[in-house]
Amino acid sequence: MGGQEILLQELDGDGVLRVTLNDVARRNALSESMLGQLTRVMQAASSDRAVRVVVLAANGPAFCAGHDLKELTAARAAPDRGREYFARIMSSCSALMQAILSCPKPVIAEVSGVATAAGCQLVASCDLAIADEGASFSTPGVHIGLFCSTPMVALSRNVASKHAMEMLLTGDMVPAARAAEMGLVNRVVPKGALRDATMEMARKIAGKSSMTLATGKRAFYEQRDMAIGEAYEYASKVMVDNMLARDAEEGINAFIDKRAPHWQDS
Amino acid sequence: MGGQEILLQELDGDGVLRVTLNDVARRNALSESMLGQLTRVMQAASSDRAVRVVVLAANGPAFCAGHDLKELTAARAAPDRGREYFARIMSSCSALMQAILSCPKPVIAEVSGVATAAGCQLVASCDLAIADEGASFSTPGVHIGLFCSTPMVALSRNVASKHAMEMLLTGDMVPAARAAEMGLVNRVVPKGALRDATMEMARKIAGKSSMTLATGKRAFYEQRDMAIGEAYEYASKVMVDNMLARDAEEGINAFIDKRAPHWQDS
Amino acid sequence: MGGQEILLQELDGDGVLRVTLNDVARRNALSESMLGQLTRVMQAASSDRAVRVVVLAANGPAFCAGHDLKELTAARAAPDRGREYFARIMSSCSALMQAILSCPKPVIAEVSGVATAAGCQLVASCDLAIADEGASFSTPGVHIGLFCSTPMVALSRNVASKHAMEMLLTGDMVPAARAAEMGLVNRVVPKGALRDATMEMARKIAGKSSMTLATGKRAFYEQRDMAIGEAYEYASKVMVDNMLARDAEEGINAFIDKRAPHWQDS
Repeated sequence: MGGQEILLQELDGDGVLRVTLNDVARRNALSESMLGQLTRVMQAASSDRAVRVVVLAANGPAFCAGHDLKELTAARAAPDRGREYFARIMSSCSALMQAILSCPKPVIAEVSGVATAAGCQLVASCDLAIADEGASFSTPGVHIGLFCSTPMVALSRNVASKHAMEMLLTGDMVPAARAAEMGLVNRVVPKGALRDATMEMARKIAGKSSMTLATGKRAFYEQRDMAIGEAYEYASKVMVDNMLARDAEEGINAFIDKRAPHWQDS
Repeated sequence: MGGQEILLQELDGDGVLRVTLNDVARRNALSESMLGQLTRVMQAASSDRAVRVVVLAANGPAFCAGHDLKELTAARAAPDRGREYFARIMSSCSALMQAILSCPKPVIAEVSGVATAAGCQLVASCDLAIADEGASFSTPGVHIGLFCSTPMVALSRNVASKHAMEMLLTGDMVPAARAAEMGLVNRVVPKGALRDATMEMARKIAGKSSMTLATGKRAFYEQRDMAIGEAYEYASKVMVDNMLARDAEEGINAFIDKRAPHWQDS
Repeated sequence: MGGQEILLQELDGDGVLRVTLNDVARRNALSESMLGQLTRVMQAASSDRAVRVVVLAANGPAFCAGHDLKELTAARAAPDRGREYFARIMSSCSALMQAILSCPKPVIAEVSGVATAAGCQLVASCDLAIADEGASFSTPGVHIGLFCSTPMVALSRNVASKHAMEMLLTGDMVPAARAAEMGLVNRVVPKGALRDATMEMARKIAGKSSMTLATGKRAFYEQRDMAIGEAYEYASKVMVDNMLARDAEEGINAFIDKRAPHWQDS
């Protein structure tokens, strides 16, 4: 795709799909068109057997600045003062975040620059996240009278309650190192080392069985909302089916024989 | 109020209500009268438009020592061995903790000294907490045969399971720095800097729209107990209503115009 | 028991039962016989009044290597390709993990060496865990095509989502110090100091009222899966019953009288 596209895609030979937010002028805001494109890319990646892992990166000084406030404000001119439009945008945005969770491929955020509001939610919604030392995170809606209520759904499932509340009530910027302590990102690397660190993790995961990753990722988010007894019953069934799948048989045999496994999909 | 009062209140010009536990002789225990007064203060603050943020502080070497064991013991003389009285006190105490959560104004604990048992629960129940270096925390009920079961409801929603269990099973004191690592308090500051640090955070939050803070705080605790799909549906509705409120329109316009917003309530 | 036993037991005078995995040749795998013996030991400890605290330790370089892959593989020869056997093993393993949670005595993992897959789950399922500097933890099922879906039930209730996901998706080894930061273990001690540190914590807890520990542990896991309002209602009832128990009356009286309490069971 050309430089004018707001979303770039690149699939490498290891099955790692790099999706790069490229609407630099709008600080990679989740505009209506960005939400639509990103959701379609996640859906396509979900069903494309060539894609094994997704990396979500961004060009420019901002990783993602959240919703496009000018678009939202323009909608106030409608007879319903924008209600229908706002509902559609919030619904699209929540659908995108849940498309990341339900995508059978692991999704890794590669964060440089600021990730704010729904941009911070995007990071929180990815399975994994690596940031460089200059990255920072905030849920600043409180500054403009619009509490980051949907971002907090993802945020509060990543970090301790008091940490989430501090971000939400103050809107303060959280530097990368603190975000790592809080559990919002997995790791912080020096500037310049970000892409290599993320791609290394992506390729490591891309080397696993796609069936196994899909099974496990789905089970993770399913069981997280269950009471523990129910979660064990569910996960035990998942394990039995996983044991009977071809890739587990091959993987276990390869382990016992001390050789590398050959996955069905690779 | 005079020095004989067990609970002091002071509202400053920024809308920060300082509520100070002042029953120094009883180590600020949550006696029947303290529970009653604190609950009434929280209720009054909830509906008082002049109050924008509540700070919960304490005089004396103990922030709060938990229930008043002498009062509880005296109730054993009743024909029912105290059952009715104990049930009333536990119910009052749980109602107080939930009144903090349901108060539409953010509540910040300012902790110097020891916060034990229901006193530790009080800190865990506040939206935010700042401690000084000398503060410490424990759930020591296990030492006296009375497990801190109600404190653990709040504690286990603040910190990791094994951290909560260590506090509950050993009753050991946790120093402030460790409490911050665990997520029980947001920050630790040097002795002597506590009041300024807390008031600075309180005033920062008091400068936000009260409507927005109330909307967001309620949504935070509501969505925390939901499965994620339900949480997104709920939070999306909250966002749409928030967008249509006057303070969001003003806040977003001010942001686009690069000027300070004027909130309805301030 | 002799050195040929795969599970050793030793009860000391303080009521601390040391249970030691001793199938060194199989890296203390949770074989069918190990699962059976460990479950029976947990059940016996649950009802044995002489046992006040359980310590789960291991001999050899591995704390526990998870399921016995050779046993699982042998079952593939059955007409149903092993389905019934796998279901039985997963069910037994989940029952063991839940027997640890439902055991009225606190259970402390003493971890030296590697704890992988269901071995990592075993650590996550204990109420408390102490590791030495050389310990390490992983959920490496993804390497062999078998996602650690049942281990993740315990893991994801101990650590932040992104930390759990990193372990599950990469299968990477987590050193003890990082496991402590994540909340998977309570504390890391120098090699050689592990047994003393664990036994000191075990004896401290064994000095408490068994009734109180049982009440509190049960309440902890019960309330953890409840919405907060329901949790308070439940925990308040637990507190009232606890107040009326003999050990709380004695414990509170002893505290007021400044003497040591005498528990019913000790």
